[in-house]
Amino acid sequence: MASAQKEISISEFFAKNRHLLGFDNPRKALLTTIKEGVDNSLDACEEGGILPDIGIEIHQLEEDRFRVIVDDNGPGIVQEQMSKIFGKLLYGSKFHSRRQSRGQQGIGISAAGLYGQMTTGKGVVITSKTIKGKAIRLGVQLDFTKNKPLVTGEEELGDWDRKHGTRFEVELEATYQRGLRSVDDYVKQTAVSNPHATLRYLPPNAEEARVYERASKEVPAQPAEIKPHPYGVELGELMKMLRDTNSRWLVGFLQEEFCRVGRKKALEIIELAKLGEKSYPTRIAREEADALYRAIQKTKISAPPTTCLSPIGEKRILEGLQKECDADFFTVSTRPPAVYRGNPFQIEVGIAWGRPGSDRLDVDQEGRITKTRKKRAKVDTEDLLGNADESVRVLRFANRVPLLFQQSGCCFTKAVSATSWRNYGLSQSKGSIPTGSAVILIHMASVWVPFTSEAKEAVASYPEIQKEVKLALQEAGRKLGAHIRREKKVASEFEKRSYIDQYLPHVGIGLQEILGLTAREREEAVDNLKETLETNRKIG
Amino acid sequence: MASAQKEISISEFFAKNRHLLGFDNPRKALLTTIKEGVDNSLDACEEGGILPDIGIEIHQLEEDRFRVIVDDNGPGIVQEQMSKIFGKLLYGSKFHSRRQSRGQQGIGISAAGLYGQMTTGKGVVITSKTIKGKAIRLGVQLDFTKNKPLVTGEEELGDWDRKHGTRFEVELEATYQRGLRSVDDYVKQTAVSNPHATLRYLPPNAEEARVYERASKEVPAQPAEIKPHPYGVELGELMKMLRDTNSRWLVGFLQEEFCRVGRKKALEIIELAKLGEKSYPTRIAREEADALYRAIQKTKISAPPTTCLSPIGEKRILEGLQKECDADFFTVSTRPPAVYRGNPFQIEVGIAWGRPGSDRLDVDQEGRITKTRKKRAKVDTEDLLGNADESVRVLRFANRVPLLFQQSGCCFTKAVSATSWRNYGLSQSKGSIPTGSAVILIHMASVWVPFTSEAKEAVASYPEIQKEVKLALQEAGRKLGAHIRREKKVASEFEKRSYIDQYLPHVGIGLQEILGLTAREREEAVDNLKETLETNRKIG
Repeated sequence: MASAQKEISISEFFAKNRHLLGFDNPRKALLTTIKEGVDNSLDACEEGGILPDIGIEIHQLEEDRFRVIVDDNGPGIVQEQMSKIFGKLLYGSKFHSRRQSRGQQGIGISAAGLYGQMTTGKGVVITSKTIKGKAIRLGVQLDFTKNKPLVTGEEELGDWDRKHGTRFEVELEATYQRGLRSVDDYVKQTAVSNPHATLRYLPPNAEEARVYERASKEVPAQPAEIKPHPYGVELGELMKMLRDTNSRWLVGFLQEEFCRVGRKKALEIIELAKLGEKSYPTRIAREEADALYRAIQKTKISAPPTTCLSPIGEKRILEGLQKECDADFFTVSTRPPAVYRGNPFQIEVGIAWGRPGSDRLDVDQEGRITKTRKKRAKVDTEDLLGNADESVRVLRFANRVPLLFQQSGCCFTKAVSATSWRNYGLSQSKGSIPTGSAVILIHMASVWVPFTSEAKEAVASYPEIQKEVKLALQEAGRKLGAHIRREKKVASEFEKRSYIDQYLPHVGIGLQEILGLTAREREEAVDNLKETLETNRKIG
Repeated sequence: MASAQKEISISEFFAKNRHLLGFDNPRKALLTTIKEGVDNSLDACEEGGILPDIGIEIHQLEEDRFRVIVDDNGPGIVQEQMSKIFGKLLYGSKFHSRRQSRGQQGIGISAAGLYGQMTTGKGVVITSKTIKGKAIRLGVQLDFTKNKPLVTGEEELGDWDRKHGTRFEVELEATYQRGLRSVDDYVKQTAVSNPHATLRYLPPNAEEARVYERASKEVPAQPAEIKPHPYGVELGELMKMLRDTNSRWLVGFLQEEFCRVGRKKALEIIELAKLGEKSYPTRIAREEADALYRAIQKTKISAPPTTCLSPIGEKRILEGLQKECDADFFTVSTRPPAVYRGNPFQIEVGIAWGRPGSDRLDVDQEGRITKTRKKRAKVDTEDLLGNADESVRVLRFANRVPLLFQQSGCCFTKAVSATSWRNYGLSQSKGSIPTGSAVILIHMASVWVPFTSEAKEAVASYPEIQKEVKLALQEAGRKLGAHIRREKKVASEFEKRSYIDQYLPHVGIGLQEILGLTAREREEAVDNLKETLETNRKIG
């Protein structure tokens, strides 16, 4: 083991292991590249308080080579940062902040550039303009043995079509396919979870872009940044915080570096740890830090604030589902915020149910059954709802980003399978996803989503998260069950009334003959009979 | 996006995302720590041509704190390297070499140290002695904002119980459990796939160590290191190789930097790319590199050499299975080496089948059915074979390392489910793992195993790999099927003969009475009858 030991750069590591970042195959590479670009654009717009207006273009250059462009009207990037953000892995502003955002690691967009470079030899082209600055265009390659950006070209643009914003352009080896887990699917789901964004999407070889107009003109409130919660900090991290703090005394350290710790709580912890409130944090030894750590675990500290969360909201989830599903019934449920490993999170669930294309039966106030043709603003031809004999479609979102892969390994899917959907009118084999013409949408908003891989495809199964998802599913499921029971009743009633409608005229003719009624009397009798029957059969 | 942009160290990244490395929960953390230690020890011994003698100790300190020690008789580490190998992520000798080894990334063992440090605040203690050097003991912590080792103590030991070797000691938060996917299970499987190693394993609170003695005294031949195969190099990497080469001319570059490219083949590629054989590699532009890359794809180049592979071998697989399974039938099949993305690999499969604890029926040369009690050297009480109504147990190995988690996401499992086991006498629901009292062992040997995550728990589904596994399973399956059919025949024959054995004496008594035979004549007649019947019913 003594020979040829060498440092490995993070870029070399991910170049060789690119399946870890979602670049397993050319099809997924295309999707991941666009996803990383759109994530960054949406985050930038929201940070700048700007309603996002995002362009996505895919141009096919050869059979297996594409040019992808993602551009936004965000606040733009200052020139000093441009090359690093797009040409260095593990560089960014979101890793250390405890604030909800789509990006977390500072890897994604540079990894997309790295993949492009590995497969086509070409770097990325970035154009950006801040409100006050000029538009700058840079060519950036990634020196992957050093994990450093190489600027290969620099240009100041006289005029640019955006007042401010950023444009990311990359060539890559890829394949484009339609259907489930395609870019089309991703863009559609992104529109559902980001109703405040306008997306213009130009698929390869298309004549014109599909436009997903925003349904809401409110920029989601910028989530607040929070300090770490004492329960979420491990001993090793605590020791590092003690070493790095500017607080002079331990009692101040606890109050300043953590959320939910006031002076009283800080003194309580210190006393339990048998330390002095005026100890110097930087001089605390491992044993004392250990005592402090254990004291924290034993002290009752209230849950972290939830101002850092930005859920989609019930109204927006409903609107999103209604836009994309030709369903009969929609419902939403939102859980109160909860905490895992010191990180606040919140679960929202939406369900759409019904047969696309069929008429909707309902009962009016007088107890009459109405039959209406469903209408919806179709954005494109494919409906999210499947057939009644197919598995229910589960749409998973984390911080508004659709998760398209690794469905079976995801905590959300496990919660769906662990719920008893038979109680709510769907068929289900034990431990499986239920069957029926329904869509289940699950969203987790959190300052830190625990993904099972850097490719951010599935949420890790923390028991706290799975429990919250299950509770939300049960709540929405109960409403769905009530609707399905009622609808079955309406349908069976509708069928019976159809019989009545069919036979009543014959009864009328019989009555006319037996009682010698006039035609008008006959009609009156039939109407009376019909009304009586309908009133008696009123649906609750 | 312009504010607070910052570089993130790889250690900070993995500290926050430690589930990516297999430290999701305290139970898995214990296993992963031991696995990384043992992987390193086995690799070191084999590199040094030494028969491995490895100690594994787990000491319980508190309810959820353990001390883990892994020590080996490997060649030891020179002092300059000790702190970096154990205190810096992405540092090692194996990442850039194309040679089969257990470790690949230079992450594992330092990550175990990092986990220990994060959960207990304590660094690791490393003792190492090379054959010529003195034994050195270092305390090492990892500065995770810089990804650098901090040596906290240094000591020269007067004498040490090993002539050479390395000892890794770490304290960590963990839980210990028995059963499937436990450390016990891991150690047992490691003994199966490494029959040349002696393992001494001391579980927590045990009186004495369980010793898995080596079954073979040959150190596996050190696998050769190979140059990259042209088909496995992407355009971006090719461009980097052209920039970095010492070869003056393109024709030399192709011959010296790749395997399987001679002068003739090099000229063929260059001509197809319309380049000059005396072009300077370092001056080749992107377009020319692209032409070269495409020419390589179009040229027929023989598969890479397979001297770099170290399969376990059929004999060793049989021995390993026989040691751990009380089975009736064992079979092995080995595929010829194959290639994915330019990386050579080889698949081996072993199957054990039968009911543990039951007698074995067989037919001797004279056609007599024999019934023998199975014997095996039990290492511990648990047999790897399950019951007949349980799913078959699949043991997965990559470069001799047992893979215990992510079974359903693994290419090997998918190949098992995609094989029609009903043809081979096992029951199976469509697309599932078959049912039966059997163990299926699958081993992949490769210079680079494409794991689905850094935790190295499952193999990614490359079609070439899945195909080879399936072919190996089918070959072994056919042998299993033949055995099961034959055994069914023997069992039914055995049953019939039991009837004959039961009734023949009565037939004898009847004959004696009718024909007035003596007792001896009666016995003779019965023996003759029995022999005739058995001969006629001979099993093929």
